[in-house]
Amino acid sequence: MTLSDTIVAISTPAGVGGIAVVRLSGPDALPIASRHLTRNSQLLTLNARHAIYCRFDDLDDIVAIYYPKGYTGEPTVELSCHGSLYIQQAMLEALVTSGARLAEPGEFTMRAFRNGRLNLSQAEAVADLIDAATPAQHRLAVSQLRGGYAQKLKELRQQLLDLTSLMELELDFSQEDVEFADRTQLRQLLSTLSSQLSSLIASFKMGNALKRGIPVAIVGKPNVGKSSLLNALLGDERAIVSDIPGTTRDTVEESITIGSLTFRFIDTAGLRHSTDTVEALGIERSLKAVADAQIVLFVHDATTPWQDPDLDLSGKNVIVVLNKSDLPQHSSLIPRHSSVRISSKTGDGIDALKQAMLAAVEPQAAQEVLLSNSRHHAALQQVQQAVAHAAEGLDTGLPADLLAVDLRDALYHLGTITGEVVSNDILDNIFSRFCVGK
Amino acid sequence: MTLSDTIVAISTPAGVGGIAVVRLSGPDALPIASRHLTRNSQLLTLNARHAIYCRFDDLDDIVAIYYPKGYTGEPTVELSCHGSLYIQQAMLEALVTSGARLAEPGEFTMRAFRNGRLNLSQAEAVADLIDAATPAQHRLAVSQLRGGYAQKLKELRQQLLDLTSLMELELDFSQEDVEFADRTQLRQLLSTLSSQLSSLIASFKMGNALKRGIPVAIVGKPNVGKSSLLNALLGDERAIVSDIPGTTRDTVEESITIGSLTFRFIDTAGLRHSTDTVEALGIERSLKAVADAQIVLFVHDATTPWQDPDLDLSGKNVIVVLNKSDLPQHSSLIPRHSSVRISSKTGDGIDALKQAMLAAVEPQAAQEVLLSNSRHHAALQQVQQAVAHAAEGLDTGLPADLLAVDLRDALYHLGTITGEVVSNDILDNIFSRFCVGK
Repeated sequence: MTLSDTIVAISTPAGVGGIAVVRLSGPDALPIASRHLTRNSQLLTLNARHAIYCRFDDLDDIVAIYYPKGYTGEPTVELSCHGSLYIQQAMLEALVTSGARLAEPGEFTMRAFRNGRLNLSQAEAVADLIDAATPAQHRLAVSQLRGGYAQKLKELRQQLLDLTSLMELELDFSQEDVEFADRTQLRQLLSTLSSQLSSLIASFKMGNALKRGIPVAIVGKPNVGKSSLLNALLGDERAIVSDIPGTTRDTVEESITIGSLTFRFIDTAGLRHSTDTVEALGIERSLKAVADAQIVLFVHDATTPWQDPDLDLSGKNVIVVLNKSDLPQHSSLIPRHSSVRISSKTGDGIDALKQAMLAAVEPQAAQEVLLSNSRHHAALQQVQQAVAHAAEGLDTGLPADLLAVDLRDALYHLGTITGEVVSNDILDNIFSRFCVGK
Repeated sequence: MTLSDTIVAISTPAGVGGIAVVRLSGPDALPIASRHLTRNSQLLTLNARHAIYCRFDDLDDIVAIYYPKGYTGEPTVELSCHGSLYIQQAMLEALVTSGARLAEPGEFTMRAFRNGRLNLSQAEAVADLIDAATPAQHRLAVSQLRGGYAQKLKELRQQLLDLTSLMELELDFSQEDVEFADRTQLRQLLSTLSSQLSSLIASFKMGNALKRGIPVAIVGKPNVGKSSLLNALLGDERAIVSDIPGTTRDTVEESITIGSLTFRFIDTAGLRHSTDTVEALGIERSLKAVADAQIVLFVHDATTPWQDPDLDLSGKNVIVVLNKSDLPQHSSLIPRHSSVRISSKTGDGIDALKQAMLAAVEPQAAQEVLLSNSRHHAALQQVQQAVAHAAEGLDTGLPADLLAVDLRDALYHLGTITGEVVSNDILDNIFSRFCVGK
């Protein structure tokens, strides 16, 4: 990928529609587009940011807009045509014939990054923004797009970079036993970094859950009504999800949206397709589901005596679901745990259960800063390790040259998040996730 | 549907993409949109046809364009947002909350028609234009959109209307035996109309074939190689058709595009899924396929003596396909019909066969005016019948009041094509074919 050529792609969703938008970006965007545009059979001049109704070859009547500095930071022309397959393809072909190159996935956004319009973390947020299908996913992406934690990390990195440079300067004067870098200040900075890293890394679990849906496990003894609870919770939700026309993302299996949050039921295959027996969801699978879950619904048949779960649920958000509230209730006491009485049969209590699920995670979900990008998560773990090393080294009086290795390591991984450090591998990996045309 | 409210829809194809366009049209398009648009936290004013980068609520950073008279002939605002499902839905909801109404399918184009921006035939062409997936389909739609035969029909209708009005005037003076309407001129006009109608109606077969693909039947004795010929003709074509991303129209079964024309193989189920026996494509099915076809490929095994087809192929475009050209050929003479020697096995002659297929229909396909709309076809047949009646009545000296009935009938059906006569039934029928957002 170079920046000296001009790229073209259909930027609107694939398929047939009223309008499609073909976008050109690069130094020759204007001359390439202009070759095809006429008005009353005269070639026309596009004025900046002005929507002009004109004809593209003899193909279609379109609206053309020229941006001297578009989304990419480059000259950009957007052509709104009728959204037929034929017109879209024919326009692309005509523009390629005139010298444009078909854009790679994410290449417009990559150019925006290369031209300094977005940092790398923001560029990644664009893909998340486009993929967002729920309010929570959208909010995460917007927060990252508008800066998020990247700006803070960038500032800390700059401070660390300054101190590291000073420390490396000492190496040139190693005979003279000087300390340009203030060790107290460095120790302080490493502490600040470490605590910021810890809280960011800790937030990944929720950030990732918001992005993919908060994992919920439904466990309990056989025949307590786990599968009917799942059905009662899902209700018509599946229909609502598929209500959005042309949904192309993978089928959302067994998930519901409550308020602005999406909950994803994990390992429900056994629950859905069998009659709820020990065989279908054995202890081992329950253990796995509980381990992956943020919320555990422990279902108990309230017409029978209470039995403590025989799974280790410590440290989990457990909601005890007392099912069969429509039948005479057993009088046993329910120890610990918040509980909700429901009847999967009549639907009683299902709304209360949903509210309890929401309440269990809402405080964490509402955190200002949430890490949701797994690449950033991996990088931050590397940074944390390097910072810990460096802090330890500082405490044990490690020489400057060895300290500098750890600090450079931390700087490197911090830099991969916002893009001060980039490799083609990182870029390819990031932008191949994008759709073509963005 | 009224024109006094403001409608909103996503005009780009359904699904996820880089950009989506939300379109508002109606008297309140500007105030409704403006309520949501800010720049640096200030509400902003949209200038006509100027692309403004701004924020929609706290939802997304978008480009907004205001057209005082848009596609519909009404104030129109187009909002280009990021193409996530969430943003698209959330913007629609926000605009509906502010007073817009979700548009019905085709309602933007219906408004363009109601506001006199398009006649009815042109409005119908917009749906064809959007559905076009081949150059021939596109050309048909563009021709109709730019006027096509509708203008000519409109002029003829006006002349007929003038004469009919004069004739009806005579009825007020029926005691006085006057003739305001010149019978010779009327007879002439009816002749002109009749011949124009005949040629338009005759062109429907090709017009419809271009729209849907030119029907081709493959017939012949068992074991001559019909199914392998089909495979050789299809080659990688299916892959090419499905190359266009997100193709949402129905799967094109067994069709190929040669030059600008699409050929559709009819009744090939038997050919594809069985070993080419009499049972699989019996005589009756062959007869039906031949009747529906514009081109008949009669396949003969050239290693065996020639046998005339035992099907009536008179009046059809017949191409004799002499298969197995890679084997020693039998010396029998092939009577009549153009023929092409091929080998399905080696691929020899397949290109020549394709060219022969193209040559068989290209002259008709290249006609200036082609009727492709089945509603128009039905209406024109009604007009032709009424005109024939009227001409006959004129020749037999039918009184003016009876003549006028036939003429009014002709006028009515002519009027339904361009929209001088409209009923809600006609409009509903036409615009329900459209996608939402156009």
